[in-house]
Amino acid sequence: MTVPPQPTISGTTRVYALLGDPIAQVRAPGLLHPVLARRGTDAVLVPMQVAPGDVTPVVHALRQVANLHGILVTVPHKAAALALADRATARARLAGSVNALRREPDGTWSADTFDGDGFVRGLVEAGHDPKGLRVCVVGAGGAGSAIAVALLDAEVAELRLVDTDPSRLDTLRRRLADAYPGRVTAATGPQLAGLDVVVNATPLGLRPDDPLPFPVTGLPAHAVVADIIMQPAETALLRAAGGRGLATHPGEPMLAHQLDSYLDFFDL
Amino acid sequence: MTVPPQPTISGTTRVYALLGDPIAQVRAPGLLHPVLARRGTDAVLVPMQVAPGDVTPVVHALRQVANLHGILVTVPHKAAALALADRATARARLAGSVNALRREPDGTWSADTFDGDGFVRGLVEAGHDPKGLRVCVVGAGGAGSAIAVALLDAEVAELRLVDTDPSRLDTLRRRLADAYPGRVTAATGPQLAGLDVVVNATPLGLRPDDPLPFPVTGLPAHAVVADIIMQPAETALLRAAGGRGLATHPGEPMLAHQLDSYLDFFDL
Repeated sequence: MTVPPQPTISGTTRVYALLGDPIAQVRAPGLLHPVLARRGTDAVLVPMQVAPGDVTPVVHALRQVANLHGILVTVPHKAAALALADRATARARLAGSVNALRREPDGTWSADTFDGDGFVRGLVEAGHDPKGLRVCVVGAGGAGSAIAVALLDAEVAELRLVDTDPSRLDTLRRRLADAYPGRVTAATGPQLAGLDVVVNATPLGLRPDDPLPFPVTGLPAHAVVADIIMQPAETALLRAAGGRGLATHPGEPMLAHQLDSYLDFFDL
Repeated sequence: MTVPPQPTISGTTRVYALLGDPIAQVRAPGLLHPVLARRGTDAVLVPMQVAPGDVTPVVHALRQVANLHGILVTVPHKAAALALADRATARARLAGSVNALRREPDGTWSADTFDGDGFVRGLVEAGHDPKGLRVCVVGAGGAGSAIAVALLDAEVAELRLVDTDPSRLDTLRRRLADAYPGRVTAATGPQLAGLDVVVNATPLGLRPDDPLPFPVTGLPAHAVVADIIMQPAETALLRAAGGRGLATHPGEPMLAHQLDSYLDFFDL
């Protein structure tokens, strides 16, 4: 197997951190580094496993690292990271989460979220334009909330939010219903009848012994089941959906469609 | 120019940080990464520029990064880093500085210093065995103190310490004089007559407009002038010494002779 080109790290390299917990599953370095190496861009993305209770002090410390120019954030830190930025885009504030933070020349930090846009672009490219459809997002965490915003921007007819945490669910539902009146519904358990697309935006499926995030039995035969988990590429959920003959959409396109956004955001 | 092989970074990569200020001059990643890549060792060394006032909180934060297995330390953090380890080797405690910290399986951190051993091995390989010689180390900071310990272990006849800070100088002189009675002298300014080897262990020479750390005019014709600065390879000091016809010894061998020590220490 040919190894794709990798960055050559030196004292002049711009360093970016990728914070998550767990971390072994992250794919962004493997996708970004060959692009950076081919472009001759002197930058590297370094995965760092940080527990939820440590993410605030770790980000504060990383802000003191002068050659660290930005931070990517994955599960479970996307909501917490919003509070660590000095400013965020409207879509990030609406989602209540960010997945990218950038050091500005004046030393402040700006944040945005590319999950939603990446997800929708991947879905459209796969032939599943969500415009006018009834779509359910299971998991109102960092990625789920960003995906919900992007789906509403992509003009879904109904956006149904599902989360087992009633407080988290209601906070997001209210914020989205204010911004997109008449299209947002919410439930603490999956109500799958009549849906065209269901998205797993929970971390369930990262670990081999995780239960399914929702049962696929109640879905219409034309429904698409999407998962945002990238590793494994075929989650138990997608396997179950495929076994029922439903169309499936894996996690990788969401990330692949974010790479250009990262490169633009970080000016790489 | 052929690019040497570089590590392929993923979520399973063991991360090591290299802390210094400035950082652009560091050479360790460029020397270590081709070795790691050729061995197939899944590890990366990431330079991080951290100001002296920030090194303690940054190290505390890095200890919370679960896939970060160790830290290399360069100018000016080597003395401060000793206090950040849970334990250190006898030579590191004697030098009062460390340049490598390792996470142990129980979560504690162990430290050692390889500067002195690397420096002496490089000097010997270049044909300048210091045994029985009169050697002066200019700069009683982290690297200088480690080099002083290693030179005493290598049986120099006299080890003369020079530093412009009388308090720092006296602290190191006393500690070394206790451990190596009758061989340690100290001065706040260079007294170069009768010396066989003089080592610059100050950061002077890292920046193009730095003054010389000491004048080379007072040295005997057979003296060797060594510098621990690696970038630029030929410092103004070495150029001045060479211009006077003195033998010179550059900074790179000190690092090159530490690589195997790093690999052993970090079990890479």
